[in-house]
Amino acid sequence: MSARNPQLNRNGELTHLLTLEGLPQAVITHILDTAEPFASIGEREVKKVPLLRGKGVFNLFFENSTRTRTTFEIAAKRLSADVINLNIGASSTSKGETLLDTVDNLCAMNADMFVVRHSQSGAPHLIASHLEAMGRTHVHVVNAGDGRHAHPTQGLLDLYTIRHYKREFQGLTVAIVGDVLHSRVARSLIHGLTTMRAAEVRVIAPRTLLPSHVETLGVSVHNDMREGLRDCDVIVMLRLQNERMKGALLPSAGEYFQQYGLTLDKLALAKRDAIVMHPGPMNRGVEIDSPVADGERSVILPQVTFGIAVRMAVLSIIASK
Amino acid sequence: MSARNPQLNRNGELTHLLTLEGLPQAVITHILDTAEPFASIGEREVKKVPLLRGKGVFNLFFENSTRTRTTFEIAAKRLSADVINLNIGASSTSKGETLLDTVDNLCAMNADMFVVRHSQSGAPHLIASHLEAMGRTHVHVVNAGDGRHAHPTQGLLDLYTIRHYKREFQGLTVAIVGDVLHSRVARSLIHGLTTMRAAEVRVIAPRTLLPSHVETLGVSVHNDMREGLRDCDVIVMLRLQNERMKGALLPSAGEYFQQYGLTLDKLALAKRDAIVMHPGPMNRGVEIDSPVADGERSVILPQVTFGIAVRMAVLSIIASK
Amino acid sequence: MSARNPQLNRNGELTHLLTLEGLPQAVITHILDTAEPFASIGEREVKKVPLLRGKGVFNLFFENSTRTRTTFEIAAKRLSADVINLNIGASSTSKGETLLDTVDNLCAMNADMFVVRHSQSGAPHLIASHLEAMGRTHVHVVNAGDGRHAHPTQGLLDLYTIRHYKREFQGLTVAIVGDVLHSRVARSLIHGLTTMRAAEVRVIAPRTLLPSHVETLGVSVHNDMREGLRDCDVIVMLRLQNERMKGALLPSAGEYFQQYGLTLDKLALAKRDAIVMHPGPMNRGVEIDSPVADGERSVILPQVTFGIAVRMAVLSIIASK
Repeated sequence: MSARNPQLNRNGELTHLLTLEGLPQAVITHILDTAEPFASIGEREVKKVPLLRGKGVFNLFFENSTRTRTTFEIAAKRLSADVINLNIGASSTSKGETLLDTVDNLCAMNADMFVVRHSQSGAPHLIASHLEAMGRTHVHVVNAGDGRHAHPTQGLLDLYTIRHYKREFQGLTVAIVGDVLHSRVARSLIHGLTTMRAAEVRVIAPRTLLPSHVETLGVSVHNDMREGLRDCDVIVMLRLQNERMKGALLPSAGEYFQQYGLTLDKLALAKRDAIVMHPGPMNRGVEIDSPVADGERSVILPQVTFGIAVRMAVLSIIASK
Repeated sequence: MSARNPQLNRNGELTHLLTLEGLPQAVITHILDTAEPFASIGEREVKKVPLLRGKGVFNLFFENSTRTRTTFEIAAKRLSADVINLNIGASSTSKGETLLDTVDNLCAMNADMFVVRHSQSGAPHLIASHLEAMGRTHVHVVNAGDGRHAHPTQGLLDLYTIRHYKREFQGLTVAIVGDVLHSRVARSLIHGLTTMRAAEVRVIAPRTLLPSHVETLGVSVHNDMREGLRDCDVIVMLRLQNERMKGALLPSAGEYFQQYGLTLDKLALAKRDAIVMHPGPMNRGVEIDSPVADGERSVILPQVTFGIAVRMAVLSIIASK
Repeated sequence: MSARNPQLNRNGELTHLLTLEGLPQAVITHILDTAEPFASIGEREVKKVPLLRGKGVFNLFFENSTRTRTTFEIAAKRLSADVINLNIGASSTSKGETLLDTVDNLCAMNADMFVVRHSQSGAPHLIASHLEAMGRTHVHVVNAGDGRHAHPTQGLLDLYTIRHYKREFQGLTVAIVGDVLHSRVARSLIHGLTTMRAAEVRVIAPRTLLPSHVETLGVSVHNDMREGLRDCDVIVMLRLQNERMKGALLPSAGEYFQQYGLTLDKLALAKRDAIVMHPGPMNRGVEIDSPVADGERSVILPQVTFGIAVRMAVLSIIASK
């Protein structure tokens, strides 16, 4: 990979979306601005625009995720693209074909865009580099989640949601609560918030669920949730993966809820107008209590709606390059 | 759920299709009438009409059924809708998300319609009630089969088929033969025939495959098939689920065929112009003999064709509300 | 099946594509000619033509193959057809329904075309004969691979590729290397090359991977690869199925590569301008070495691109009958 940011073309325009790390503030702002009009398309009678008509968007999911795949499928269809869903776990990989051979084959079928989900960090980068090496500069990659590395469209929809409710990032204190260690969602959001110059980003978690040297990402660390939530503007709860609950990292789901579950009680410590976010799917009664999830400060469902708009923005910006 | 019929809006118009039980005769007749022109669309060169253009129809199948899912997918695509297939068994449920959280998320993606298949009776009702409670009156639910409870579009296509061949319901004797106990198809058809005032509905089955107090549904009961078929106008054979054949409810598939399989011989006891129906997939040689299934009185394949038209009618009526 | 070629209608026009065996040269040439303009559609901004608008193409895959299914799906969508993907392994078959009952049901849903993949040789023929017997002459079948029998669209795309690079078949020597015994790809290509009057078709393989009496197909047989490759114009490498490598038919993957893997070294024995083909997915280091697969004489990726064009040609020719 060249020293140049592999997501940007020679003119500094977005050509792949791989990670929010290192993405210039102006590019992020452009994506959020582009998403604005799309956010209202869903309420129209006819929800389609012809921006990607005749383009082939390939959902290349090496890791199963019906929810994320569906949001990209909806976004692409609203842009009038032709969508091909490929659950690769069940096909070529099992036949021993390499990742890049699969990509080359799909390019030969005139794919215009790959939306890639992979359990291994770096897979979308690898594909983007390969496309560039092969001179296929008209084919674009969007990272839909790779290992523990990044989930940039989730990060962008989180930023969109925060901007929507708080107008600007300056002066905001954002708390990210839970399993930061295994969360690409947290990592992408932290990079995004740092770039957008949020006043303070706090991570709140037990030591066992924090990456070592997490402070180097520019966040402050809290092990006590009540202390960490004090005067926050935005609270982002992370999903506690079921497998963590059974492992040695945590005492029990009940005790986790006791210490790190967001209840109305704990929420009262944040600012009066604080918003509550969650990437979904929620574990009610584990990381979040139902009165909070369904309460008036929850913006969890608007996040989903904005997620479609943000993905439409990313796909349409990239396709126009 | 309110005392009001949850399928009808304040103006008495169909807004969800959950069950044929309690559905007014006028509403059923309106659906059947609306299906008439759609029944001929399949024979045209271009099979599409733009009634649902830009609408999002979500096939929410918590229970696998390629056949039913396909008929709804075809119906929705002929109406120019965007169709998203979600096989939920394999996704969010396994991640511990609740049914209603899944529904809320899909609503946040601007779903317009849910076609729901679920192994638990009442799931589509639950979703419809939830949508109403959340004020999402523009989102509609169609029950594509819930547990042993109802399969209303199958009931409607059965009614359509009967009306197509017999012109009217008055004076008709209809026999429903086989595993009534486990059959949502039978239940929906019985409610439909009662509402449409068929002269007589008979159920024919061994005692072990009949619900207790089945007579309260307004049917007469026959354990002897030859007696039950006498002078019938319409014979509806039910599928014998494979798992029943292995269970304690029945002696053997061979003996079942002997007593309750429809042969030319037994068919001769019905009226000369009786029609033979089956919801499919058939077990030839178990509940129906091939010469009957493929014979001139079989309307089993027209049922499938009418099924697309009836589903188009339901989707388009509901979407216009 | 009648003595008449079941693929052609009474006017000698293609109505099903089942096998290249016995397909007249003029019909093959017509398909290849029709594919020419489609081959450039993929490079256009908008990749669609309205030839199959409103038509229902059913991908009926009784055997899983994401790659082949995807190429047909892309071809059908570029022709503006409505595509329904049915993975039948997981549905009706398990419910005990017969193949022909499934087909009848889908016809009743107004299917216009079936793209059929089946592990049993002859399944697409059976379906085509059944459709004819039922008088459904407006419904068409395309064989997407049946058992060891045929894979005619693969054969056609191979012919297209050869004609594209070599202009004509007369005078060409084509070597097909590898597991001919289990390969429907090889069988289809041999029939195609014979019909198109290639000068010589050689098969190169160990005895254990050759059908008995393979010479009766009109090919010459070589067990020594270096001898067989000498002065070839075209080299078609076959995929070595993983299961063969573990079986008793072969000593080991390493030894196979040694003897029958295509390396730059062996490639040098063919003509200077020889092209290298492979149906994919490739086993690099087993039947083909990476410097060859990625080398300048490899036309493996163009084959994929031409495959879409050839499938568009077949679907559109058949649909116009």
